[in-house]
Parts: sequence; structure tokens; C-alpha cells
Amino acid sequence: MLSTFDPPYYAVIFSSVRREADTAYDEMTLHMAQRTQAMPGYLGAESYRLPDGSGVTISYWRTLEDVQYWRSDMQHRAAQDQGRAQWYSSYRIRVCRVAYDYGFDEAGQLL
Amino acid sequence: MLSTFDPPYYAVIFSSVRREADTAYDEMTLHMAQRTQAMPGYLGAESYRLPDGSGVTISYWRTLEDVQYWRSDMQHRAAQDQGRAQWYSSYRIRVCRVAYDYGFDEAGQLL
Repeated sequence: MLSTFDPPYYAVIFSSVRREADTAYDEMTLHMAQRTQAMPGYLGAESYRLPDGSGVTISYWRTLEDVQYWRSDMQHRAAQDQGRAQWYSSYRIRVCRVAYDYGFDEAGQLL
Repeated sequence: MLSTFDPPYYAVIFSSVRREADTAYDEMTLHMAQRTQAMPGYLGAESYRLPDGSGVTISYWRTLEDVQYWRSDMQHRAAQDQGRAQWYSSYRIRVCRVAYDYGFDEAGQLL
């Protein structure tokens, strides 16, 4: 996910270590991803998980208020509670303001 | 990598799509990871790569000046040039200020 957004915008880095995969986890992550996409200020997300259980999901948001609104969503809070109880052995969430970005696309253009 | 650092600090999110793996790439990434760890202001990093070639490395830094110093390092610049020419089909670098973080550790402690 190499989209560009006009800064400033916000990144939420959710690093986690998963205990074990199960069907309920997969259903929850799919449901929460869909719900996230419908939230105000959502710009995009990228997600990675390694075979050892460690992984990260980074979601991008227009404003800090959008991040806080998403954090307070009741379904999101319930998923977090269940995550701590059942699916994750640890996690860390970092809320960041993107100051600037740059990159390089398939056509060789510096962006 | 679920370390905690005292905010504010900086996160550099390097999202990339790799063309194909080769030995030279593996040697470069190992060398650059070691060199990064010796840079002033380096706090830590986490890295993930999926079988489809997409991946992310997030490095954490004390100040924005530390990020800029690392960006201007000559070996780092050479690796970036080679990366664009050879290893990556695209990448995006986002330089972020971590405003706050929170989490949950193996002992069930909210942090």
C-alpha cells in the first residue's frame, strides 16, 4: 500500500504479537477492517503478519480527532478487549503525525 | 518489537514492494540494519516482509535531526540508489512524530 496523501495526516502503528490463529480472529479482523474503512477520516491501511506471530497494521487518518473517534468506537473497543483476553500476547499502538513523505513508484518517478 | 520509548520521538515508516530476493539484497539489508543501529538517536526498529514482496520497516529515532542525519549518510544514500535501480519496484517513506503510545504486555499490564 504505497498510496500518497497530502500531509499532515496521521498514522496509527499497531504492532502486535499474536498467540495463535483461529477462525474467530480472522472473522474479527475482516469485520474490523471493513468497519475501519467506513470511519470518518480514514485514508488507507497496510498490514503484515510473519509466521512467528509478530505483525503490524498501519492505518492512516486525516486528523487526530478521526483517530480518537475510531479509538472510542464501541465495536472497536470490544474487539480490543477480546484481543487482550484471547488473541494477542502483547501489542503497542503508536499514534503519529506524518510530517512529510516521499517515495518512488513503478514508473521510476520520485514522488 | 514492542519496546516503549518516552514520547515525543520519531518513526520512519519505510513501505516497499520488492522485485525479487537475491543474496546481495540480503547482505545490504543486514549491513544497513547494523549501520543504522550505530547511528545517533536510534531507538529501535521492526521489520516485516510478506511472500508477495510487500513489506515495511519502521525505525524509531529520538529527534528529527537524527532522522535527517541518517537520511544523509553516504552509505545509506548509495543503498537507496541501488534499491531504486535494482531491488524495489516502489517504496514510500513517511517521517512521523509519535505523539503518544500505549499497549499491553505479556504480563497483562496496560502500558
